[in-house]
Amino acid sequence: MEKEGLTIEGRNAVIEAFRAGRTIDKLFVLEGCQDGPIRTIVREAKKNDTVLSFVPKERLDRMSETGRHQGVVAYAAAYGYAQVKDILDVARKKGEPPFLFLLDGIEDPHNLGAIIRTANQAGAHGVIIPKRRAAGLSATAASASAGAIHYTPVAKVTNLVQTMEQLKEEGLWFVCADMEGEVMYGQNLTGAIGLVIGNEGDGVSRLVKEKCDFVTKIPMFGDIDSLNASVAAGILAYEVVRQRRFANRGIACKENTSAQRNKK
Amino acid sequence: MEKEGLTIEGRNAVIEAFRAGRTIDKLFVLEGCQDGPIRTIVREAKKNDTVLSFVPKERLDRMSETGRHQGVVAYAAAYGYAQVKDILDVARKKGEPPFLFLLDGIEDPHNLGAIIRTANQAGAHGVIIPKRRAAGLSATAASASAGAIHYTPVAKVTNLVQTMEQLKEEGLWFVCADMEGEVMYGQNLTGAIGLVIGNEGDGVSRLVKEKCDFVTKIPMFGDIDSLNASVAAGILAYEVVRQRRFANRGIACKENTSAQRNKK
Repeated sequence: MEKEGLTIEGRNAVIEAFRAGRTIDKLFVLEGCQDGPIRTIVREAKKNDTVLSFVPKERLDRMSETGRHQGVVAYAAAYGYAQVKDILDVARKKGEPPFLFLLDGIEDPHNLGAIIRTANQAGAHGVIIPKRRAAGLSATAASASAGAIHYTPVAKVTNLVQTMEQLKEEGLWFVCADMEGEVMYGQNLTGAIGLVIGNEGDGVSRLVKEKCDFVTKIPMFGDIDSLNASVAAGILAYEVVRQRRFANRGIACKENTSAQRNKK
Repeated sequence: MEKEGLTIEGRNAVIEAFRAGRTIDKLFVLEGCQDGPIRTIVREAKKNDTVLSFVPKERLDRMSETGRHQGVVAYAAAYGYAQVKDILDVARKKGEPPFLFLLDGIEDPHNLGAIIRTANQAGAHGVIIPKRRAAGLSATAASASAGAIHYTPVAKVTNLVQTMEQLKEEGLWFVCADMEGEVMYGQNLTGAIGLVIGNEGDGVSRLVKEKCDFVTKIPMFGDIDSLNASVAAGILAYEVVRQRRFANRGIACKENTSAQRNKK
């Protein structure tokens, strides 16, 4: 595991980190702050023998990377990137066909965090990001992930195309989104799958696209070019969820009747 | 139409504004900047008799609200909020049952912009926001909407609950997302529909929820509480798209065969 330091900021993010069992090296809390969430955090810190300091607002502001520390900043021991095989192990242990995200150059840490959050909720087993020209696991990404970063493994690889080749050997199929593709609702997105999400401005790069087994399309009826990258990732992920877990199980649309109508 | 001034920043946002036919009062361009997109913008400005000034970077930095002006800031004549009836008129003209978003207290302008962008691409007819305790149409929201703000009408109302009552008279059904609801894939989301998206932290408020005809659930399999608000809005919107435009049309999943496999 590669190690990097991690600043965790904000009440929910810090509470989530304690709950997920992360080792917090140092915790800084706004002096005089006594409300419920802060007391929960202080209790967790004492339970875990975390070094705890009460500091003035100016000090927290200086430490904060996101500017939204809400009176609490924690230094985590280190953030561990996973290996690609760790992600496959998670799937194996759950007895599920692997479902992972491969991010081809997501630059905005908010998007990275939101995608990790979506991956966690959609039941994906992990996220793969490239080493170069992409957002990494910063405090901003951790905060935008709403704690998902502590549960969903993120692997950082040198060469996405090589990683795709290795994962194809393991039986994965790769699908990327592009307006040239076929509408996603008619494609088979079940089985062992890697969802490829492209860069915010440039989309999926040529070499990565060439390695994909399918090109899929989110149908768009608007006047502009594209969707936000993390929104597009969410829409694709949940089409995978629908097909994997809900299609062909007799879940059909019911007729709405006026009796159901909420007259309030 | 209520009027407000609007600062438009960034190359794509300004190009989109010209293309959408917005009146730009004044345009400020970084002096010495000569690349392709900037030349396109200058050409559009001349074609539209826009007052054009070449200014130093410091001046643009001072004018910028988002901090990401990319060498161009435009002052639009005014941004016009639509009326709710304008949104219904858009649906009527297209001969479609109304499909709109009702945002119950979205506070982050990035989320507001991303949701307007999604509404545009999902073929929704408009977005309704409340006057108080919510993000409005700022430069940040406009930029996050990637130009959608110029196409998709946004109405600002004093009382969301009253607006819902009026829209129910017009035949709309309202659906909000909550973990207590029924999984969205099994619910009927066709017909005249208002998708209610709750606040980032607190979700949908009690009074608004009580007015909803359905509570729907995005199924979640993760370790954390929720999805990002604009991602959740995108997932719900595209379930509406699937049911409205793609279900029951013989679009079924195909078997993947090894012949389809991309061996590259």
